[in-house]
Amino acid sequence: MAKRKQLRTDISWSTEDTITIKGLDLCRDIMGKVSLGDMAFLELTDRLPDERESRVFNALAVILVEHGMTPSAIVTRMTICGAPEAMQAAVAAGLNGLGSVFVGSMENAARLLQTALPDPAAEVDIAALARQIVEQERSSGRTIPGIGHHIHKPVDPRAPRLFDIAEENGFSGPYVALMKAVADEAGRQLGKSLPVNATGAIAAVASELQIPWDIVRGIGVMARAIGLVAHVLEELRDPMAREIKAMVEEQATAHHR
Amino acid sequence: MAKRKQLRTDISWSTEDTITIKGLDLCRDIMGKVSLGDMAFLELTDRLPDERESRVFNALAVILVEHGMTPSAIVTRMTICGAPEAMQAAVAAGLNGLGSVFVGSMENAARLLQTALPDPAAEVDIAALARQIVEQERSSGRTIPGIGHHIHKPVDPRAPRLFDIAEENGFSGPYVALMKAVADEAGRQLGKSLPVNATGAIAAVASELQIPWDIVRGIGVMARAIGLVAHVLEELRDPMAREIKAMVEEQATAHHR
Amino acid sequence: MAKRKQLRTDISWSTEDTITIKGLDLCRDIMGKVSLGDMAFLELTDRLPDERESRVFNALAVILVEHGMTPSAIVTRMTICGAPEAMQAAVAAGLNGLGSVFVGSMENAARLLQTALPDPAAEVDIAALARQIVEQERSSGRTIPGIGHHIHKPVDPRAPRLFDIAEENGFSGPYVALMKAVADEAGRQLGKSLPVNATGAIAAVASELQIPWDIVRGIGVMARAIGLVAHVLEELRDPMAREIKAMVEEQATAHHR
Amino acid sequence: MAKRKQLRTDISWSTEDTITIKGLDLCRDIMGKVSLGDMAFLELTDRLPDERESRVFNALAVILVEHGMTPSAIVTRMTICGAPEAMQAAVAAGLNGLGSVFVGSMENAARLLQTALPDPAAEVDIAALARQIVEQERSSGRTIPGIGHHIHKPVDPRAPRLFDIAEENGFSGPYVALMKAVADEAGRQLGKSLPVNATGAIAAVASELQIPWDIVRGIGVMARAIGLVAHVLEELRDPMAREIKAMVEEQATAHHR
Repeated sequence: MAKRKQLRTDISWSTEDTITIKGLDLCRDIMGKVSLGDMAFLELTDRLPDERESRVFNALAVILVEHGMTPSAIVTRMTICGAPEAMQAAVAAGLNGLGSVFVGSMENAARLLQTALPDPAAEVDIAALARQIVEQERSSGRTIPGIGHHIHKPVDPRAPRLFDIAEENGFSGPYVALMKAVADEAGRQLGKSLPVNATGAIAAVASELQIPWDIVRGIGVMARAIGLVAHVLEELRDPMAREIKAMVEEQATAHHR
Repeated sequence: MAKRKQLRTDISWSTEDTITIKGLDLCRDIMGKVSLGDMAFLELTDRLPDERESRVFNALAVILVEHGMTPSAIVTRMTICGAPEAMQAAVAAGLNGLGSVFVGSMENAARLLQTALPDPAAEVDIAALARQIVEQERSSGRTIPGIGHHIHKPVDPRAPRLFDIAEENGFSGPYVALMKAVADEAGRQLGKSLPVNATGAIAAVASELQIPWDIVRGIGVMARAIGLVAHVLEELRDPMAREIKAMVEEQATAHHR
Repeated sequence: MAKRKQLRTDISWSTEDTITIKGLDLCRDIMGKVSLGDMAFLELTDRLPDERESRVFNALAVILVEHGMTPSAIVTRMTICGAPEAMQAAVAAGLNGLGSVFVGSMENAARLLQTALPDPAAEVDIAALARQIVEQERSSGRTIPGIGHHIHKPVDPRAPRLFDIAEENGFSGPYVALMKAVADEAGRQLGKSLPVNATGAIAAVASELQIPWDIVRGIGVMARAIGLVAHVLEELRDPMAREIKAMVEEQATAHHR
Repeated sequence: MAKRKQLRTDISWSTEDTITIKGLDLCRDIMGKVSLGDMAFLELTDRLPDERESRVFNALAVILVEHGMTPSAIVTRMTICGAPEAMQAAVAAGLNGLGSVFVGSMENAARLLQTALPDPAAEVDIAALARQIVEQERSSGRTIPGIGHHIHKPVDPRAPRLFDIAEENGFSGPYVALMKAVADEAGRQLGKSLPVNATGAIAAVASELQIPWDIVRGIGVMARAIGLVAHVLEELRDPMAREIKAMVEEQATAHHR
């Protein structure tokens, strides 16, 4: 038998009369004092947010809760229709699609910003850095994440609103500046308006909050779980899954009839 | 082609420059004003909570975020170990187990309370109703949900704390009274102490907040999604999944060697 | 520290140079000799099928592989569209909906048959038993599983075909007779033609193969996993998920415009 | 309303009295004639295998069904323990972990082979190509997929067995030769024995069967779904999930006591 590595968690532990989470006593320090959003911040960063961090983090997180009839919402609805006894599986199914295409672009934008600017306190030429980023992304054939939007034109209204909230609370630093500069530079190089979208604003503001880029997708996952429960409920009360199925099947097999 | 039912959602819709969620403008009415927990309340109930509802709902929800090394947390960790590029799938896998055994008992307790007392304003003899519930559950061979705890003895500390917060905010009404009376009656009939546990307290307080019982499991699902992201993070930083796998495999196949 | 129960698996174990599955050596006894379908039978029943069992089991299993644009297939396609890097999560999402409504009816039919006739060798009056089952299901308000079909009229062609294959191979015993008698009796009592459908035929034939009813859903799960991979592939080659999303969103939010 | 792309599937469609799958009539052409493994081949490649292809494909697929107490199997068991009413969700949870680490290496090996040798009929110097592959993988810091094994030493017995079956049936062509040459070359460059493992053998043989590399992971997903059903069953009959949970929790939180 090989020598085993010791298992170790520091998230939570219990005794007969206490539950400790990230060093805080659940009953004494958290319940009645910490909101669900601040609890999420605690789970992500190992500490409670101060008041300004809380305002910014919650503003950022609520953007991600609900986007209407997304592929994820459709998935959750189709799933609850087949397994109404397993709401958790319907939400789980909906989360499975939060990969590189939708939520992943937020992660990519955050990685771009944090990789380009590992130390937010460093003195840098933001415009030069933005130029370098845009050139590098374009030359490697990648789409620059966090800018432009196919529906919200000319401007995704969530982005300026989140930037305003960040600024009011002292979180409009170098990452926000860099994200805006990347959008400007990309617009200039590509000859069209490509303002920062919600994804880019979230990535920049999360970076200001010192949330590591490889965690950023997790904010989307937790927020969307909330929204998907609402779709379960509406589907249970006023279903559309069978209609969608009938419509898709009819259209997709019409050429075989 | 059959006449189709019209698809219809009233959760969220967008135009080029607005996003509306449950009738509120995301940028103007929600961002910067509504916390993630209150957003969850909005998604579940179609309206924002007032201040007291918010305190009680958030206190209830934070209980469900994090329970340490639960089966769900182990599932999420084993999954991220095999698919580190798909954090969303690891959280989804963890949620899949929130069925009848763990989170379901909360749902059962809420159903019991709301079925026994469909109108919280009705005049009822709580003690008699509790006696009736306990007798009926026992005679049908079911475990009474929401009472007793295998670790937290003599009392699950979350239950009295949640009841206190509910009371301070005016939400200690007939469902809380009934849940406590059921625990008392069950303890009397079974001859042992069976105080209300966290599950029972949440079910009672959710009922006070007028959250329908068939939605209650959803609070657990959304809250646990938050907690599972924290387990993804710890597993990425300080993994234990391979150790667990090696330990389980070694023990479970030892008799074949 | 409490005394622990010993972990134990008897499905598979390995040494440096052998892999054993259900007591058989993978390389020597299985590879090149056992087909995937017979391997599934082995996994479900702890022994390899004989030739006749193999023919019947494979005929039964292939029915469950592919049903076109089902809710599950739509789920898998919507999921791969958001997370093309995680094919396994797309199949997983699709499986999540195989609950009580679709695959569950097969389980219910098998439970009905095996509960009514625990010993297939017992002498029973099949017609009387069928009458009793139909009366009991009707009086408890349940839909009788395994009969009738909303598309395949007058007869689901898979049912007589599976019954023929079962008969040719000596597996047309009391469960098949009982399933047919239930369909006849229900048709008589309800005054319309309600022939055995694919679900009922599978339940009956699985019972003839001595597959316990609480395993029957598993055949659907494994078979459908195969079919969902085909939908991943078609979606990757010729996508429809974004179209479905656009169509659903447009229709479902039209009344808000 | 934008012009919509026409939805289209060519996998399966139904009329009142027929079900067609990949152009074949389910009842007439498939049931009783096509085994589950050959059905999987049909779903993956749009045609039925001939006898030799069937033998090779089934031999390849059965390898992937069952690997004992893998992370996936543990996940499925932990999940069924919390949601015993949702077997499909337990299998789904287990599949979620079949990502880049485990099943993905098979995909990577197949991609390597098919990218290096897009036309299997081309005249190539296999040894030179292998040298080029090993150098390129090493210089880019990647692990060469498909070779070496941490348990099965000196040789993973599945690899030579699968190669033998492939050869007996006429499927030992350039991809098998290239995979073996890569293993030889890597062993030489790294100065240790690194024989082709099961992953590499499957990748090579799947390539011989002309299965595109981006589908190869799907064979693992479908096969493992079969195996995970067996773990559901053993867990329902003789559970270990609660023990695993207790053991993990105790060890991982010991330092907090």
